Amino acid sequence: MATGPELEVYVDLLSQPCRAVHILLDCANIPHNLRTVALRRGENRTQEFARLNPMQKVPVLVDSGFVLTESDAILKYLATRHDVPDHWYPRQPQKRARVDEYTAWHHSNTRPHAAKVFILEVLIPAQTGSQVDEQRLIRALSQLNETLDKLESMFLRRRSFLCGDDITVADLLAVCELMQPLGGGRDVLQDHPQLQRWRSRVQTAVGEAFDRAHAILCAVRERHKAKL
Amino acid sequence: MATGPELEVYVDLLSQPCRAVHILLDCANIPHNLRTVALRRGENRTQEFARLNPMQKVPVLVDSGFVLTESDAILKYLATRHDVPDHWYPRQPQKRARVDEYTAWHHSNTRPHAAKVFILEVLIPAQTGSQVDEQRLIRALSQLNETLDKLESMFLRRRSFLCGDDITVADLLAVCELMQPLGGGRDVLQDHPQLQRWRSRVQTAVGEAFDRAHAILCAVRERHKAKL
Repeated sequence: MATGPELEVYVDLLSQPCRAVHILLDCANIPHNLRTVALRRGENRTQEFARLNPMQKVPVLVDSGFVLTESDAILKYLATRHDVPDHWYPRQPQKRARVDEYTAWHHSNTRPHAAKVFILEVLIPAQTGSQVDEQRLIRALSQLNETLDKLESMFLRRRSFLCGDDITVADLLAVCELMQPLGGGRDVLQDHPQLQRWRSRVQTAVGEAFDRAHAILCAVRERHKAKL
Repeated sequence: MATGPELEVYVDLLSQPCRAVHILLDCANIPHNLRTVALRRGENRTQEFARLNPMQKVPVLVDSGFVLTESDAILKYLATRHDVPDHWYPRQPQKRARVDEYTAWHHSNTRPHAAKVFILEVLIPAQTGSQVDEQRLIRALSQLNETLDKLESMFLRRRSFLCGDDITVADLLAVCELMQPLGGGRDVLQDHPQLQRWRSRVQTAVGEAFDRAHAILCAVRERHKAKL
């Protein structure tokens, strides 16, 4: 009797961490069933989904009954469990520690600061019909710039990718956050050529998986442009 | 020729994540040289320390020249590299994923919310001589309470420790954050009996290492009491 893949992954591709998970699944050809949970339609707040993840967040992975939340943990679990090429999450302890170092830093830096720009410029105006709060946006952009400077001067210093010479799950988490403000037409890497080159290297490394994960965000950008 | 341990660890025991690292080193008997970097005296901003860690933060681990920052990564590296009992960071992929899930969540929840209470109640008044901002404190306590509720209802649900039936590095990171407001005389677990029992289990599991790591915080609490 043929059975489908036992791995189910719940995502909304407008969510940055979901795109990171989607790219790894796609690049590493991990068999899975993709379930879409549209946050904008509140599908994360249905009883059924809340039973699966009481936090009501995406992504969620279900591997033969084992339910796992948090993109960071999901990416590392997929890399460990599904025999993906070692470079994604190297087994050598010092190389692995570099990935764990970036991902820990990511949660208090790249993620909140890039997300805030998108929230202020796209989400809040779309939800409330109000103008962009320019004062708050200026502060958010300034905080994001500090983070971008650190990404360049500390993580990318003399290296091609954030944690060394090859792409890891850390690059996926970072690039998906830094792409998000593009939904409002803003390229936050505009004044950071070193990060632009890194983004190109990530795009080249993951190929069409990058565009597939970002197709919906690009559609949002087009709609945003049309409204201006 | 006898040589000392090749592991150097830079900490300030008034920093929550440093205490978590200190407890693991102590409990697992990992040979190391402890270097104190007193944040209140700005020792993290000296040229020498900034060369070691341009982020100017503690803890920092140096293992035979390999420099690693971020407590989360340091704890996992120590557990992997120094042959500590498996329960601290289990090798079995699903058990390990539970630890990675909590630690990812920790950075955006337990850590910022517990730290904020201490900053508002102890740090800012000590540094500026001003009164506690009661409005901000009430908001911070309310955010922290949401996090405590989630710790009880999601992570501790039917389990003795945050990630299962035995103590892991996740419990160390969490307990050290939740102890911090005690420096201002506030037990944030006062109305959370389930978390109180968990804290007792953590204290029992790590024994005197808990008190050794928290001695300086307890001294701060006594000084704070004397001033009131």
